[in-house]
Amino acid sequence: MNKQILLKSRPQGLPTLQNFNFVESDVPKIMQGEILVKVIYFSLDPYMRGRMNDAKSYAKPVELGDVMEAGGVGEVVESNSSKFKVGDIVSGMTGWQEYSVLSDKFVRKIDPDLAPISTSLGVLGMPGLTAYCGLMSFGKPKSGEQVVVSAASGAVGAVVGQIAKLKGCTVIGVAGENAKCDYVINELEFDDCLNHRDENFKSRMREVCSSGVDIYWENVGGITFEAILPLMNEFGRIPVCGLIAHYNQTDLPVSKDRIPVLFRNILTKRLSLRGFIVWDLKDQEEEALKQLSSWVLEGKIKYKEDVVEGIESAPEAFIGLLEGKNFGKMLIKTAPKNNL
Amino acid sequence: MNKQILLKSRPQGLPTLQNFNFVESDVPKIMQGEILVKVIYFSLDPYMRGRMNDAKSYAKPVELGDVMEAGGVGEVVESNSSKFKVGDIVSGMTGWQEYSVLSDKFVRKIDPDLAPISTSLGVLGMPGLTAYCGLMSFGKPKSGEQVVVSAASGAVGAVVGQIAKLKGCTVIGVAGENAKCDYVINELEFDDCLNHRDENFKSRMREVCSSGVDIYWENVGGITFEAILPLMNEFGRIPVCGLIAHYNQTDLPVSKDRIPVLFRNILTKRLSLRGFIVWDLKDQEEEALKQLSSWVLEGKIKYKEDVVEGIESAPEAFIGLLEGKNFGKMLIKTAPKNNL
Repeated sequence: MNKQILLKSRPQGLPTLQNFNFVESDVPKIMQGEILVKVIYFSLDPYMRGRMNDAKSYAKPVELGDVMEAGGVGEVVESNSSKFKVGDIVSGMTGWQEYSVLSDKFVRKIDPDLAPISTSLGVLGMPGLTAYCGLMSFGKPKSGEQVVVSAASGAVGAVVGQIAKLKGCTVIGVAGENAKCDYVINELEFDDCLNHRDENFKSRMREVCSSGVDIYWENVGGITFEAILPLMNEFGRIPVCGLIAHYNQTDLPVSKDRIPVLFRNILTKRLSLRGFIVWDLKDQEEEALKQLSSWVLEGKIKYKEDVVEGIESAPEAFIGLLEGKNFGKMLIKTAPKNNL
Repeated sequence: MNKQILLKSRPQGLPTLQNFNFVESDVPKIMQGEILVKVIYFSLDPYMRGRMNDAKSYAKPVELGDVMEAGGVGEVVESNSSKFKVGDIVSGMTGWQEYSVLSDKFVRKIDPDLAPISTSLGVLGMPGLTAYCGLMSFGKPKSGEQVVVSAASGAVGAVVGQIAKLKGCTVIGVAGENAKCDYVINELEFDDCLNHRDENFKSRMREVCSSGVDIYWENVGGITFEAILPLMNEFGRIPVCGLIAHYNQTDLPVSKDRIPVLFRNILTKRLSLRGFIVWDLKDQEEEALKQLSSWVLEGKIKYKEDVVEGIESAPEAFIGLLEGKNFGKMLIKTAPKNNL
């Protein structure tokens, strides 16, 4: 049997368990050019909140009654493709389920001897590539510059900050818990990390960034953005990668002068704001993956995973992710006994 | 005697005549490396409103009691420089006055046989360069793309739109009077031009831009920006050149959801917003001026000047400019009888 999590209803604001449906169905059949994958890990990422809305965006929404969308990694258990054989480890868009039928066109083979296969969903997967390609293309870090990274202990932010350090920048993280800040400072070796829930967050940020901010990596929006905007230096760059603080917002109290303040900053400081999605940077993926893999193997880039066991736990884990309760790359391990 | 307009007090909101002081003083003496210029035209531009504030910006404010800042063009009447001789026509930062002492380092010689000297303050000066360099560097127009230009009949907007047409784009202007819209359509040959004061402006904009907007040239901010943001196509570019609608704002009613809407658009459509100032693009000036001059001589780029005679009229003309009352590049002609 195939265990699956379906989208039952569209959330208003933060999703609840009632928005999801857990079902068991037959393991699906495969056609020519397809493979059947037994999913070992699938990934939970903030972008999935967008897919739950019935709104035009860069990707089409998940339809009601469909399996929730996710990248996953697993073992080929049946193959109707000359490209993959039974026993291969592959990653692709498996969805929130235990068995997934994938076209051999949209699957990547993973070498389990190179690194733990879960990294293909994190530091050596979409989040790592997002960090590398976005920072290089739109952040353009130069040695000696000051970089602020929001969601600094998260899957993307942790990699952004570590790359910026490798490029000779001073890097300040922002996270939502003191334990995360400690990890960012002590393990990831950022120069500092502030808790955006602290009362003195804005004034502390001003102190820590007394020479201004050249690159602000935008993962979250909200008050973090507000605190950093006035600190931006001339010719500052703001790659807009995500907006976790806004994903669940149905209504937002905004002080009246924010848009003018934003634009005044953009104009007078010649800021650059650039939204992007990792797919847009496909041509950089190969080089990025090579560079990231070697940094990970050399121990220059560290990563942390937050693995929850059992597909049934996915909805709760996902809601927690949107509230910032995860600590590291959020993964669901569907097969608790698997040793990979 | 030298007639001058000084900054008397800092405006709250729209400047009034009381913020300026008209004085007569001795014609100043020049030192080594300096020239004395009898100003023929000086330029009035929206950016000058920013200089009247006592706020940190990309340029320092005009001090109270100082001559208002302006680019101007005039004749050298005394020279202590080997680079310029009496009778030369030069352009430089003359200020709002009849006689100006300029260092020979910051002055450009103008050939009065090539084009009317007033163009050195408009289509072949700062506004034209702003249009050319900004559009090429940050707009990056491609044939077949849809371009919207705010303040379309203004000194910068008119050039932006005409260049975009030369590059094969469909170009829609936005202006604040029907007469301006007519001029933009009939003389500048934009594909269309809408009046932002029209009741149906937003819905008309949606109709006219039914295939979306690839480049929005931001000169004004305010409701024009709001109308166009939802129409932006993926990978759209928004060069932020000016924000006339905001310059006089001391308080602005903003609907609550604008910042989140802006950021959602930036992210999901991968928009690029880039503030810039023409000084930042100095290295492109020579090529830009060559190209613009040849287009102007070939009649491919048209321009319109709004010349007001007499330095005493400058404050009123400037206030009108900020209200959109000018029609074409706003210039003050200090010497009414001069035939240049």
